[in-house]
Amino acid sequence: MKERSEAKCTVQQIAEAVGARLQGDGRVEVNEVSSIAAAGARHLVFVADEKHLESALKSGAVAVIAGEFAAAATTEKPLLISDQPKLAFARAANLLSAAQQSPQDGPAHVHATAVMDVSARLEFGVVVEERAVIGANVSIGKGTRIGAGCVIGRGVKIGKGCEFYPQVTVYAGTLVGDGVIVHAGAVLGSDGFGYVRDRKTGHYEKFPQVGRLVIEDDVEIGANTTIDRGALEETRIGRGAKIDNLVHIGHNCQIGENVIIAAQTGLSGSIVIEKNVVLGGQVGIGEHARIEEGVMLGGQGGVLPNKILRGKGIAFWGTPAQPVREYLKQLATLARLGKKK
Amino acid sequence: MKERSEAKCTVQQIAEAVGARLQGDGRVEVNEVSSIAAAGARHLVFVADEKHLESALKSGAVAVIAGEFAAAATTEKPLLISDQPKLAFARAANLLSAAQQSPQDGPAHVHATAVMDVSARLEFGVVVEERAVIGANVSIGKGTRIGAGCVIGRGVKIGKGCEFYPQVTVYAGTLVGDGVIVHAGAVLGSDGFGYVRDRKTGHYEKFPQVGRLVIEDDVEIGANTTIDRGALEETRIGRGAKIDNLVHIGHNCQIGENVIIAAQTGLSGSIVIEKNVVLGGQVGIGEHARIEEGVMLGGQGGVLPNKILRGKGIAFWGTPAQPVREYLKQLATLARLGKKK
Amino acid sequence: MKERSEAKCTVQQIAEAVGARLQGDGRVEVNEVSSIAAAGARHLVFVADEKHLESALKSGAVAVIAGEFAAAATTEKPLLISDQPKLAFARAANLLSAAQQSPQDGPAHVHATAVMDVSARLEFGVVVEERAVIGANVSIGKGTRIGAGCVIGRGVKIGKGCEFYPQVTVYAGTLVGDGVIVHAGAVLGSDGFGYVRDRKTGHYEKFPQVGRLVIEDDVEIGANTTIDRGALEETRIGRGAKIDNLVHIGHNCQIGENVIIAAQTGLSGSIVIEKNVVLGGQVGIGEHARIEEGVMLGGQGGVLPNKILRGKGIAFWGTPAQPVREYLKQLATLARLGKKK
Repeated sequence: MKERSEAKCTVQQIAEAVGARLQGDGRVEVNEVSSIAAAGARHLVFVADEKHLESALKSGAVAVIAGEFAAAATTEKPLLISDQPKLAFARAANLLSAAQQSPQDGPAHVHATAVMDVSARLEFGVVVEERAVIGANVSIGKGTRIGAGCVIGRGVKIGKGCEFYPQVTVYAGTLVGDGVIVHAGAVLGSDGFGYVRDRKTGHYEKFPQVGRLVIEDDVEIGANTTIDRGALEETRIGRGAKIDNLVHIGHNCQIGENVIIAAQTGLSGSIVIEKNVVLGGQVGIGEHARIEEGVMLGGQGGVLPNKILRGKGIAFWGTPAQPVREYLKQLATLARLGKKK
Repeated sequence: MKERSEAKCTVQQIAEAVGARLQGDGRVEVNEVSSIAAAGARHLVFVADEKHLESALKSGAVAVIAGEFAAAATTEKPLLISDQPKLAFARAANLLSAAQQSPQDGPAHVHATAVMDVSARLEFGVVVEERAVIGANVSIGKGTRIGAGCVIGRGVKIGKGCEFYPQVTVYAGTLVGDGVIVHAGAVLGSDGFGYVRDRKTGHYEKFPQVGRLVIEDDVEIGANTTIDRGALEETRIGRGAKIDNLVHIGHNCQIGENVIIAAQTGLSGSIVIEKNVVLGGQVGIGEHARIEEGVMLGGQGGVLPNKILRGKGIAFWGTPAQPVREYLKQLATLARLGKKK
Repeated sequence: MKERSEAKCTVQQIAEAVGARLQGDGRVEVNEVSSIAAAGARHLVFVADEKHLESALKSGAVAVIAGEFAAAATTEKPLLISDQPKLAFARAANLLSAAQQSPQDGPAHVHATAVMDVSARLEFGVVVEERAVIGANVSIGKGTRIGAGCVIGRGVKIGKGCEFYPQVTVYAGTLVGDGVIVHAGAVLGSDGFGYVRDRKTGHYEKFPQVGRLVIEDDVEIGANTTIDRGALEETRIGRGAKIDNLVHIGHNCQIGENVIIAAQTGLSGSIVIEKNVVLGGQVGIGEHARIEEGVMLGGQGGVLPNKILRGKGIAFWGTPAQPVREYLKQLATLARLGKKK
């Protein structure tokens, strides 16, 4: 498991890095982000809503990120004013977190208990933790960390700056881009669920699952999520997609850029999710469906096989999924009828 | 994997331990619980319903736990009469099971293939199985067993008498109480699912997930379940909560005492589940919702973000969740209308 | 992770093995299956629909499996004519895949980093990969492969020709037949979810989960799926059943032959699924329900506890599940009423 060291940044450095306007003493040092309630020495907090400004200013934090509404506040704490204060806070947190990591400029470090094939190639700064298994012809990019107990199959390519938490399994031939985070227990590139039934005997013959899985840059994948490889083609997770825990993505799915998929959602095979789609938790989508750009689909919503959902910024809900306004009308009608009887 | 030895208890000992009234020969020995159908020598069975009494008495079991209805039965088998016979049987089983464990009074035993940081502290009787990884500053309480292949992150504290089955991952800083059972593949303390979208670029920035996860005493957690750490605060699982397989619990959730959560249920972030709530399987609950004390929510039920479900002992069902009686009326109305047309 | 070598078969050999009629030069060699779009030298493709025949014939593939409609086509590529071309293709793929495996005729091969109890018995050709843990009194049949990091509990029996992908956990006493495929992270034989509540104290006592799990021949189990052992009896997965990723099967369930269960479906305890049933994704079934032979239940469908679904070849949908025709009528009625208002 990774080591962290104390990191310090001045609020001046943070303001510059996150693009906030500094008011007050820029030399104040912070080393951690915090909630307002738990804030203590060297902690940085944020406030996005003016009604919480006073408690932020009274908190133990040494500096506050806030919206323009805070510009006139009287306080000794340095303020970092941003038109997107929560975003600025998230960036500050990631800056502090990166500063806390051990430097990864040296040669690759492979723990003595890891098992690595001689043909694997690790770039500078790669860390392979306890008991990880790295197969033949694997390549791993600069500064990537492979957590304890991960199993990386033959021929897998992983980019730079990735973080694999413990016990992840990556099947042979999977391609992973840069800056990808994969949480514990996730399975990447497993066989899809495809069989051909013999009309004469009723026996199911396994259909070949020999395609591959491609994960583009800056994707995050949740704990115990499973993503299947393509059957003959490929499954692809687009740049910047964020996938929560226990999600299932079937073979041949194409997930667009910046798609958000909440926990326990399931996609069967050959589905297209276009960019900027947001899927709530426990959504289920049937094979060959297409969810077009910018659609939002509420939790537990269902889409039938071969269907298309269309409408940038339109929220859908229910099974079968409908525009949420229509669906709510139906629910209201049903509730009224139920009461009459 | 744990070793078991033969254990024997007399029915007299069991009757005393589980608070049952003994009828018959107290010296009879039992070493295992069984179903009535499979019962053989040294087996103990139970019967909660009078209609199964005869088959219990005719079975191969050497002793029978039963309700008061059995008191007048003519049999040579010793009877353990209880007003809660199933409960008495469960207690007897746990007694026999505890007796079967190898004694754990000696010093901690760490398998030669486990990897343990020198700063980790193990109390008496701790067992660390094959290939487990124990990080820096971990502490593990008396008699706790860490299964093969588990990865226990830096700074994790685990109480006494816990059972971790194989391949569990515990992220850094998680706190676990006493008597906690965690099944294989569960992930505890993973990052929550939180991002801030940059309004200008559309890019998602990861929001810090630096809070912690606290699991109180006597909790059981199912296989491949995932529980996220708090974002800035903590996620907490209350004493005695029982969580089934493949459940997802998001960041900052507060689960009360003796809550029951069946398989594949998903809780998004910052949800409060008060004590004695029962959630069926595949339930989905939106962020910031509150389920008040003693509510029962049926399988596949859904609760919208920010909603409150209230009513001790009241059963809810459907999405959005409604009192089950009203929901059934609606379903009946709908079925009637569907037929008319 | 497993090694593969180049395999070649002539189309003559394939035609004979899959029962197709060969037209053209039987000496042409193929070594891999492919999609039509990606086909190159030595690739075999298939076409089940006449409209794709021309692109298959023009593709880079060296041979084509097709239906009877292709018999009169003019082409230099050898054709393998079958009345079930997709099935023939799947069989050809499995033939080529089997030919690619390293021969497994020698003595068992256990990786130096695996941990095996001295009492375990491995038949010829067994391969135990890196860091796997094999418990006491385990037996593993001829040619079975145990993937990296798997943990096989005490007394488990696994048949011949099985493939266990990495990080699978098998609890003590589980029985697995021949030809079973288990994907990464699956958990087999975990404790069921059963408690008895003390009416006086409100405390939940764990009910014994000491039965076993039996998996019959030719079953495939998806990544991170969990199947619980019986409480006192057994859980049984019938011959030829195919189970997708992240499925949950509770204690005492009986799954019949050739049952298909899609991803994220959940079965609570003591359910009977008769042979040839097909369950879509995210289906939820309550305890003691029975799904009779040949029923099809659509995605997200729900069945209440103790219910019976009956009707060979009949499709059900919705919660509570109804024949799909009736359910669609209800949805249409509801949509109409919603619009009126």
